[in-house]
Amino acid sequence: MRMVDLIEKKRNGEAHSEAEIDFIIQGYTAGSIPEYQISAWAMAVYFQGMNEEERSLMTNAMVKSGDTIDLSGIHGIKVDKHSTGGVGDTTTLVLAPLVASVGVPVAKMSGRGLGHTGGTIDKLESVPGFNVEITNEQFTALVNKNKVAVIGQTQNLTPADKKLYGLRDVTATVNSIPLIASSIMSKKIASGADAIVLDVKTGAGAFMKELADAKELAEAMVKIGNGLGRRTSAIISDMSQPLGNAIGNALEVKEAIDTLRGEGPEDLMELCYVLGSHMMVAAEKARSLEEAKAHLKEAIQSGRALEQFKTFIEAQNGDPSVADDVQRLPQARYQMEVTAEETGYVTGIVADQIGTAAMMLGAGRATKESVIDLAVGIVLKKKIGDSVKAGEALAIIHANQAHGESIIQTVRQSFSIDKEAITPPPLIYDAIH
Amino acid sequence: MRMVDLIEKKRNGEAHSEAEIDFIIQGYTAGSIPEYQISAWAMAVYFQGMNEEERSLMTNAMVKSGDTIDLSGIHGIKVDKHSTGGVGDTTTLVLAPLVASVGVPVAKMSGRGLGHTGGTIDKLESVPGFNVEITNEQFTALVNKNKVAVIGQTQNLTPADKKLYGLRDVTATVNSIPLIASSIMSKKIASGADAIVLDVKTGAGAFMKELADAKELAEAMVKIGNGLGRRTSAIISDMSQPLGNAIGNALEVKEAIDTLRGEGPEDLMELCYVLGSHMMVAAEKARSLEEAKAHLKEAIQSGRALEQFKTFIEAQNGDPSVADDVQRLPQARYQMEVTAEETGYVTGIVADQIGTAAMMLGAGRATKESVIDLAVGIVLKKKIGDSVKAGEALAIIHANQAHGESIIQTVRQSFSIDKEAITPPPLIYDAIH
Repeated sequence: MRMVDLIEKKRNGEAHSEAEIDFIIQGYTAGSIPEYQISAWAMAVYFQGMNEEERSLMTNAMVKSGDTIDLSGIHGIKVDKHSTGGVGDTTTLVLAPLVASVGVPVAKMSGRGLGHTGGTIDKLESVPGFNVEITNEQFTALVNKNKVAVIGQTQNLTPADKKLYGLRDVTATVNSIPLIASSIMSKKIASGADAIVLDVKTGAGAFMKELADAKELAEAMVKIGNGLGRRTSAIISDMSQPLGNAIGNALEVKEAIDTLRGEGPEDLMELCYVLGSHMMVAAEKARSLEEAKAHLKEAIQSGRALEQFKTFIEAQNGDPSVADDVQRLPQARYQMEVTAEETGYVTGIVADQIGTAAMMLGAGRATKESVIDLAVGIVLKKKIGDSVKAGEALAIIHANQAHGESIIQTVRQSFSIDKEAITPPPLIYDAIH
Repeated sequence: MRMVDLIEKKRNGEAHSEAEIDFIIQGYTAGSIPEYQISAWAMAVYFQGMNEEERSLMTNAMVKSGDTIDLSGIHGIKVDKHSTGGVGDTTTLVLAPLVASVGVPVAKMSGRGLGHTGGTIDKLESVPGFNVEITNEQFTALVNKNKVAVIGQTQNLTPADKKLYGLRDVTATVNSIPLIASSIMSKKIASGADAIVLDVKTGAGAFMKELADAKELAEAMVKIGNGLGRRTSAIISDMSQPLGNAIGNALEVKEAIDTLRGEGPEDLMELCYVLGSHMMVAAEKARSLEEAKAHLKEAIQSGRALEQFKTFIEAQNGDPSVADDVQRLPQARYQMEVTAEETGYVTGIVADQIGTAAMMLGAGRATKESVIDLAVGIVLKKKIGDSVKAGEALAIIHANQAHGESIIQTVRQSFSIDKEAITPPPLIYDAIH
């Protein structure tokens, strides 16, 4: 088999066989196929696509390129949730204890990563004492005992995907549905969950700006997952503005605690109910989404969800009293109000810009070497559709350094204020099974 | 400027600016842009194409990447002829002395190259004593004195094109009209001619199998040439079977001598008249193609063309008596007849297969290190449309080793013989100015 012939085949719009996909992915991982051939092939895939079978084969080949996690020691149907990313997405912090409290085992492996804020692990580390450096045996035992645990990811999962993603990033071949779908799904499948619930974001603050693209991606991933024997469903949710109010590590933990108490922002609460319902159904802990949602509401109202959070935190050496006194979380030195300059209605919030402002404050990593400031971030006081008076707060900036006017301006300019009110965008656009 | 943005731009179907094309070609030549970005970009060009301006800019950028030849010391309008390649193309050997004999200066730079037979230089070296290792000064003086000289190419012409072609070859991005056209034209323009006559081949034995593709390539190249101030025209000629009868180095020199004497194969003679006419008009040595053709015919009938060949050979230390006694050219030890197994009409000759057979005999180079056997090759005795009787010769194999039956079978199987006669394909399909 020669790579040049496979590039030509894809260029001409033909489908690859299993042997061909394996040849490409194994050869690239091993270094026997050079990057210049893979990038030309990826561009051919960009234009010609991949059929359903090829997408599954591609996903599987990337899974096989590295370690896979064995969760068989954990009882029950393990459900993983994945979000395609956005700004201020606190759902994982809420969902892990919430669905655990209704019996869904949550074995969460997480990384640190780059972005506007840290990863789930960074966020949880704002709880004093919280420790993710546990052994695999401890991890399994904890999930079996408490239904929820989080561990730092150390295995070499899907190295082919890492290498391919790096190459796609510098060759303008990121934006291809089959390549995005197989990349995400290979990581999820290698992580060992039995079922996968996907939260595909759409809107200005998401990777998929257009609803049609988000749907296409969601459908592609659901087909791959189900085709490879993992019960997979997806919802498509709005990211035209940040989700919830908090953007920042400790700030999001606080918001998660509020939400588990039933006092979280409306959009975040609702999204957690929807995703949680899908997780419960996938884990066979409820027969319908409606039944699941009732259970979840009850878990929050009864305080069981928040209790579960405390148990989870305590089991990993964290201070559970943060749930009762959020002042124990890291606090930023300065709080600066971003005020509206005119009276009207909020008609838009540029999520990316808010995210960038949070990163400038120190909430996220620009490079692997960056050190995160867990205390800093931004809390929105107004969302799309809200009315606002001149001089009223749009957001509060939590900072540990004197940043001056520029950061305030950046956040202020993220808000569009108009005389006419608009209807806020829907939170959930679609669900795909 | 970032290469990833330029790949994305081309991927999205946008046109590049001059600065962008220069950035790409200079960066690639200098090694500051990696091959994996160039190959992804080339694949994007494959799908999205390049407009007329981009093609000119691309050609110019590749010309600027290396040396350019200065032919200004040679009097008159220098016309270069280029063929897109086929099997048994003896036109250069005929045309150089032929058009020189009617006053067109021919300053021919040539390489050795890979292929079914050697390059023009290899072929000419079958003439005992012929020397292409002359200085630039000798070359200029010879063209000014005799109107024709041939020199081996030593300068570093269009290194960007060499590098890009090598990459395209292994990334399935050869087959792109803008990339092929700019590749060919950059070499022609760097070679310094004032005018260019292109012979674009079409048919089973050519790179462009389809007439429509050949036309598109011809039009692309003519526009590039004229746009960059070189008077350029093209003809589209048939390569559904080998041109003329001889395939092999010394065998083609003999055929060229026959043709200069007016006794060459009909198709080769006609193609030389057509190309020669275009060259004369481009060199302003005739006002019309008809007038030019009359001059060329007269040059052959009067013996002036053959005399010019002798002068040319003698001036470069070759033995001019080969023109009178072709036995002085290298002769192969064995001649083997390939006979027809049935009676009927020749309806096809697979040019590529004949070419491969010639290479197997030793007429061409498979790798740069291969040593050419100048004496060997194949002479066709039948062409498409000819009638043939069982047992009659289809071709004569000239060999220096005992090749056995297999080579005879290869050549025999290249011929299709049917009961029904067919009309031979036209020699010239079109002319583009």
